[in-house]
Amino acid sequence: MRVLILGGNAAGMSAASRLVRKRKDVSVTVVERSKEVSYGACGLPYYIGGFNDDIDLMRIRKPEKFRKVGVDLNLMLSAEHVDIENKSVDCFDLESQTHRTLSYDKLIIATGSAPIVPNIEGSDLPGVHTLKTLEDGEIIRSALQNENIREIAVVGGGYIGLELCEAFSAMGRKVTLFEAMPNLLNGFDSEFGQCVAKELEENGITVYTNDLVKKIEKIDGRLRVISAQSSHIVDMIIFAVGVKPNTSFLPDQISKLPNGAIITNERMETSVRDIYAAGDCSTVFHKILKKPQYIPLGTNANKQGRIVADVIMGNHAEFAGALGTAKIRVLSLELGKTGITENEACAAGIDAGSVRVTSNSHAPYYPNPVPITLKLCYDKPSKRILGAQIVGREGAASRIDVLALAVDQGVVAEQLRIVDFGYAPPFSTVWDVIHIAANAIK
Amino acid sequence: MRVLILGGNAAGMSAASRLVRKRKDVSVTVVERSKEVSYGACGLPYYIGGFNDDIDLMRIRKPEKFRKVGVDLNLMLSAEHVDIENKSVDCFDLESQTHRTLSYDKLIIATGSAPIVPNIEGSDLPGVHTLKTLEDGEIIRSALQNENIREIAVVGGGYIGLELCEAFSAMGRKVTLFEAMPNLLNGFDSEFGQCVAKELEENGITVYTNDLVKKIEKIDGRLRVISAQSSHIVDMIIFAVGVKPNTSFLPDQISKLPNGAIITNERMETSVRDIYAAGDCSTVFHKILKKPQYIPLGTNANKQGRIVADVIMGNHAEFAGALGTAKIRVLSLELGKTGITENEACAAGIDAGSVRVTSNSHAPYYPNPVPITLKLCYDKPSKRILGAQIVGREGAASRIDVLALAVDQGVVAEQLRIVDFGYAPPFSTVWDVIHIAANAIK
Repeated sequence: MRVLILGGNAAGMSAASRLVRKRKDVSVTVVERSKEVSYGACGLPYYIGGFNDDIDLMRIRKPEKFRKVGVDLNLMLSAEHVDIENKSVDCFDLESQTHRTLSYDKLIIATGSAPIVPNIEGSDLPGVHTLKTLEDGEIIRSALQNENIREIAVVGGGYIGLELCEAFSAMGRKVTLFEAMPNLLNGFDSEFGQCVAKELEENGITVYTNDLVKKIEKIDGRLRVISAQSSHIVDMIIFAVGVKPNTSFLPDQISKLPNGAIITNERMETSVRDIYAAGDCSTVFHKILKKPQYIPLGTNANKQGRIVADVIMGNHAEFAGALGTAKIRVLSLELGKTGITENEACAAGIDAGSVRVTSNSHAPYYPNPVPITLKLCYDKPSKRILGAQIVGREGAASRIDVLALAVDQGVVAEQLRIVDFGYAPPFSTVWDVIHIAANAIK
Repeated sequence: MRVLILGGNAAGMSAASRLVRKRKDVSVTVVERSKEVSYGACGLPYYIGGFNDDIDLMRIRKPEKFRKVGVDLNLMLSAEHVDIENKSVDCFDLESQTHRTLSYDKLIIATGSAPIVPNIEGSDLPGVHTLKTLEDGEIIRSALQNENIREIAVVGGGYIGLELCEAFSAMGRKVTLFEAMPNLLNGFDSEFGQCVAKELEENGITVYTNDLVKKIEKIDGRLRVISAQSSHIVDMIIFAVGVKPNTSFLPDQISKLPNGAIITNERMETSVRDIYAAGDCSTVFHKILKKPQYIPLGTNANKQGRIVADVIMGNHAEFAGALGTAKIRVLSLELGKTGITENEACAAGIDAGSVRVTSNSHAPYYPNPVPITLKLCYDKPSKRILGAQIVGREGAASRIDVLALAVDQGVVAEQLRIVDFGYAPPFSTVWDVIHIAANAIK
């Protein structure tokens, strides 16, 4: 059996490794358009911020290693067209500038995503960047060696934008953050984004929300950012406004969401037989919403890569458990979310309510207890926990995994409020904020 | 309805508060033999170690507050005898030195536990202490004001003993720890106790395991500890070898375990009608072992107090979920456990296996990733998770709550290894140690 994989990052290489490890009778070919495979892009803000100084730490597994275990790995090879009839993919070799056609029995599309650059005047000026690849990371870090780069605008208050605010601030730069929506962290309810804005501002970062960037101009060797509310002159601009799936080269027979994400079921199957998709180019099957959702996170990509390999090998495997669980540290603030919010429940026609409690992170007799706020969304008839959002300091984000498992398992409030969680003064109070929130659901 | 509660700490006062809050037609009388109610004894090591300097932080709620909401609270009153026939309790007033008899419709025994002092020569010498009450804490802290108290022996390598080692060390004292069993943290498998011993020794604390203290002698105003293996001269000795339930005054009709713990079911009912028990004087119903177990922890006491109040009010309530979940920080090491170990499963006739994996605490590109070790015990036929033990640095202990919920909910390995937990570089790797351990269960 010939398995052809388009894309050599988390999803693609997870699938490739698993296939060659488990099955000697499968030939695995990977087509990757860059020079890099299998890297941890989520480490880039920390590299840029000088928290680590070795970009090699982000190269999780190098091309040689994959080749050694039997993966036919082709770098600088770009997939251009999928011929569904003939089960083949036309590729273009970016080095030799030649065309090649590769045939397959099973095709895995794992081409990932690319940063969205808004179609506004000046967005292609030098000094305007996005952050996705290792190369992007090197370019931005190198630029920071120049001390004349003093002021930086970050556009987009999601995970990457916020991590970049922290990174640039750590490098001693003056940072201004622009978010077009009313609040930062758009996937969270507004009060959580407001906590983040406060944390940023208390640490000298200027935050504009509800403020769409409309135009960028070159001015005296610097850049002027013109937004709905204001005009700022800076030395560098980073767009971190989201990603779009790399799927424009695919034929229409492969069904996609309006944003271009390939629709997959819990077995990573697409609408075309023998074609699978995994990672940031595809949807995941959401456990609560019970439909495909676009949640481009490394956690999903790795799971999808594993599952698609198992499915192709004929093993029982499915990932029907996507919950959109995510964590972020912003300066000393920690946030996490899992499952759905009351608004998302409403939009999905679920009769949901929510409770929000604030409690102490840990016992008063251990130093520095701080407030921790947990909001639970629940199904009103059954009191089943549907989602959670949390904000606090050290140890806050870790609690979201408990709630992810609660949502995953369909735990109801009455069970959650009495679970035998561990307690010691440095970690929690005897009734943890999770108990207290569950208890607030009547 | 007259509810009489013997004991005014976590279990007793939780029950009392809930009863007076929810039901105006119930009279609630509490009998407490000390002057203190409702305090966080688990804060005492941190008070002794100077991590906090205000013993009032441990007084969670003061007597006046309980009286104000309608609890008839009697301090310095000791319960001496329970008359089951007449539904009354004979008490002795320690201040007025007089006897009183209190009648009840429902009796809650919540008399807690007392530290075990081994019956060896010299265990009653001045300078030999135990730690249970606020008064004990004050005495030990005061003693440390004397700089001649330079060397301290801690006897018992359980939670309190270990926290005291850290406290005394923080106060600049030379500490020697004696544990009669082969390993510290007796409830954990041996490798976890060994990690703790290493951490203590690396921080200048001397550890003797398998070393029973046999005798204490007074010598030149100091104390000589004679153990199976050695002889040490110290200035203070703390016994932290466990607790025994305060139940010796109770009639035999109330069934007890051999150690004296009152046997309760999931509704906190004892073997005698209208008599309930809660907290450290009683057992909890263990969810996995499906029988009453003695697990004297504040978490259980608070839950039992709440449940017994609900049961007495005629509400549906039960605590069939005790798992023995516990966390501890020892210097910079964090440990946690929940559910049962393979040895405990074996003893209970369960066909169990276990896996142990060591992985990175978080992504390599965020500073200071450190090893984290997780051991899972599982039911072999079903692959259901029965218990977990964890050791690592910052963030390790918090993961035990995820596993507590997994054990509570009967999650099987195949589910656990794919749960959508949150990831960000400061917190974990994309596949967290929980996924990796679950995946190791074949």
